[in-house]
Amino acid sequence: MLDEARLMALKQEVFEANLALPKAGLVKLTWGNVSVIDRELGVIVIKPSGVAYAEMRAEDMVVTDLDGIPIGSGLAPSSDLATHVVLYQEFAEIGAVVHTHSKWAVAWAQAKRDIPAYGTTHADAFYGRVPCTRELTNEEICTDYERETGNVIAKTFTERGLDPSAIPGVIVSSHGPFTWGKTAAKAVEHSLILETVADMAFQSEQLDHNLSMIPDYLLDKHYYRKHGENAYYGQR
Amino acid sequence: MLDEARLMALKQEVFEANLALPKAGLVKLTWGNVSVIDRELGVIVIKPSGVAYAEMRAEDMVVTDLDGIPIGSGLAPSSDLATHVVLYQEFAEIGAVVHTHSKWAVAWAQAKRDIPAYGTTHADAFYGRVPCTRELTNEEICTDYERETGNVIAKTFTERGLDPSAIPGVIVSSHGPFTWGKTAAKAVEHSLILETVADMAFQSEQLDHNLSMIPDYLLDKHYYRKHGENAYYGQR
Amino acid sequence: MLDEARLMALKQEVFEANLALPKAGLVKLTWGNVSVIDRELGVIVIKPSGVAYAEMRAEDMVVTDLDGIPIGSGLAPSSDLATHVVLYQEFAEIGAVVHTHSKWAVAWAQAKRDIPAYGTTHADAFYGRVPCTRELTNEEICTDYERETGNVIAKTFTERGLDPSAIPGVIVSSHGPFTWGKTAAKAVEHSLILETVADMAFQSEQLDHNLSMIPDYLLDKHYYRKHGENAYYGQR
Amino acid sequence: MLDEARLMALKQEVFEANLALPKAGLVKLTWGNVSVIDRELGVIVIKPSGVAYAEMRAEDMVVTDLDGIPIGSGLAPSSDLATHVVLYQEFAEIGAVVHTHSKWAVAWAQAKRDIPAYGTTHADAFYGRVPCTRELTNEEICTDYERETGNVIAKTFTERGLDPSAIPGVIVSSHGPFTWGKTAAKAVEHSLILETVADMAFQSEQLDHNLSMIPDYLLDKHYYRKHGENAYYGQR
Repeated sequence: MLDEARLMALKQEVFEANLALPKAGLVKLTWGNVSVIDRELGVIVIKPSGVAYAEMRAEDMVVTDLDGIPIGSGLAPSSDLATHVVLYQEFAEIGAVVHTHSKWAVAWAQAKRDIPAYGTTHADAFYGRVPCTRELTNEEICTDYERETGNVIAKTFTERGLDPSAIPGVIVSSHGPFTWGKTAAKAVEHSLILETVADMAFQSEQLDHNLSMIPDYLLDKHYYRKHGENAYYGQR
Repeated sequence: MLDEARLMALKQEVFEANLALPKAGLVKLTWGNVSVIDRELGVIVIKPSGVAYAEMRAEDMVVTDLDGIPIGSGLAPSSDLATHVVLYQEFAEIGAVVHTHSKWAVAWAQAKRDIPAYGTTHADAFYGRVPCTRELTNEEICTDYERETGNVIAKTFTERGLDPSAIPGVIVSSHGPFTWGKTAAKAVEHSLILETVADMAFQSEQLDHNLSMIPDYLLDKHYYRKHGENAYYGQR
Repeated sequence: MLDEARLMALKQEVFEANLALPKAGLVKLTWGNVSVIDRELGVIVIKPSGVAYAEMRAEDMVVTDLDGIPIGSGLAPSSDLATHVVLYQEFAEIGAVVHTHSKWAVAWAQAKRDIPAYGTTHADAFYGRVPCTRELTNEEICTDYERETGNVIAKTFTERGLDPSAIPGVIVSSHGPFTWGKTAAKAVEHSLILETVADMAFQSEQLDHNLSMIPDYLLDKHYYRKHGENAYYGQR
Repeated sequence: MLDEARLMALKQEVFEANLALPKAGLVKLTWGNVSVIDRELGVIVIKPSGVAYAEMRAEDMVVTDLDGIPIGSGLAPSSDLATHVVLYQEFAEIGAVVHTHSKWAVAWAQAKRDIPAYGTTHADAFYGRVPCTRELTNEEICTDYERETGNVIAKTFTERGLDPSAIPGVIVSSHGPFTWGKTAAKAVEHSLILETVADMAFQSEQLDHNLSMIPDYLLDKHYYRKHGENAYYGQR
């Protein structure tokens, strides 16, 4: 039997993270979803599909097993659930996933371009360019679209040798951003940072159409100032 | 005699949809109008002309017959009424019309360009590019401007073989957007989506000046994920 | 002796119009000012110089004679007063003047370009392009800067044969917008419209770098739909 | 022994200035910091590192000596403290420093370009272009990054012969803006102005890709209208 108190806490976490998205200007209408995984408990908790934020309650969050099969009766889960499931399977260290259609990240996704690291705001959170996946093929789209979206994200990281802990987000070609983190709050924060650096990178390119990435030593400095055992940002 | 309760409900629907426009950032000053049609009752209900949103009351909404002739005394209807009337006559399946001067849609209208489908945000709501009408001729403008605006919209859909249910909006050359839907709320939602995809498409073009539309299979996938009998987005 | 009640009403009008500017996003810090003239009473009432909006009270508004000489004791008037005085002298039909540093109008002013009429949003309020003045000379700036700013605005209208009633605003080269109207509320509304059409025109040019102005018959249609004896917009 | 009342007033000043940053849209998450110096008291007071604005209290502000060594127990100071310390040492007349990652200033910093003075909004606060520092070297970044950031700012002013009182801000290459002023409120105001003129200059360049700076006499006029002994803006 599931631990009800723990489950309710997960629902509350997912609920609050979903509400944080429109509040931060990252989501309009119902264009976003957050999930968390509890690997010990064997569950994923995700936003229901197409429910207005204003009407959503914590108890409406949908519980599934680790394969995305809903447990018990309840609302239908977000149609992007299968993408989240694949990300949890492929990225063992993550605890939450966020998907939005935030404007600047989508602009880069539609242009099918990686977001280059042009400054320290980027380097503080993403250890290198935010990758844009290749486009899905007709076959991938027609067979199991949402699962294949997850697969193409995972392949992007594998093929390029990227570490999902150091680059906690991606933009899916012609679609939009997915981010992740240890907790729902962290995954939401990564969505906000991704959107902000997508915006800043866009503007910088307008000012200089031949702009180069920052040097590796500046990327290293800022990333490791905030992450890893020698980090010295924040309270210890 | 008209059914007063039903009429009051229509006025309330139109009133609330009008107020939703400035709240969503789609309308400044008095630059917008919403109408609904009740084909059974034989009436159109529309915002009065040039009345400030802050002072407008539900009972101020103007009732006309299906030709746009005001019924009873009351305020003068929106000066764009004749455009709404033509759209209701030409597009049998729609129940509401919205007109705004929202920034990004106007930017494309002024550039006299269709809004290309560059991503899934667009494909989720518009099954193909959002058309921009041809410019009205001097004669059309001087004779019956608002009616001819409706005619040029209808012709755009006929001549290009477009389905107004699948593409619930248009931009009128040098002017701005009109959207529609089964209900006032849906028509307003389409205005918001049109504005958002106009914005995203603009930014993507700045990132790649030779951008191509998304392939048909991705357009199909996203449109039919949300619409038609095989839709699986949202609660069933 | 001045009519105190009438004077207090003028102060209240100026006070409220000044507060409307930051509320509409047209002014940051203390970068704006509104004045009204009462030609019968022989007074101009204007915002005091450099006073924070949050601390300003209606009674702080400064009263001057028609030459801009302060009447009675009180705060120092806006440093732009002399520009307002010239506009009242040169444009006999206006009753209020507004100056801001709103972003999009300033962007055009800094580029020293007229704002072209690219659509109906523009034509509804400005009967043709919004002119950008020539740059002030070194001598004009060093002798009587604010007065010469008014003079260069007036000359722009005279030399180009423009009617300040039909084009209720201007952008001063390298500086920013001035608008006017019969009342303070109307002058503020013109500032908001000028800012909006400056924004829209900017974006449309990014979509088409060789964009043309709308044809005269569309300009005529929209302007005269709202203005003059054959206007039919709004309530009669 | 330190004067506790005076110290508490400094903490309150720093606390309020920090809160003003997200309120003015200049800071997201924890991406900003404000400090003040009291040279007589021999202390610097600065925001703690990585603490959320919503949870921060005035008493959490961190007190250090003039070398940036924390006095007493308490939270860890902002990781940018060493930059502030250098600025206080090099710019004897300043009383407060602000650092943000505001969008438009960062866009120019990432493009490694000075912000040109294109209009009076700029000239009112910055007496000439806002300089962008050279990039830090690998060695500077690896040895004492935050201190070297301060050094490269100071060198930029020395080598170019700039007066930090007349140009109260800088953008650090690939990073973002630092501003300063006599008080924390003034330094925050300079951050807001820097962000605004960075935005306006960006847009003006899009309208004219070969734009020139304003002439010196207009720069002089506007700067000295607000600053120095002949200033006549505001209340005397």
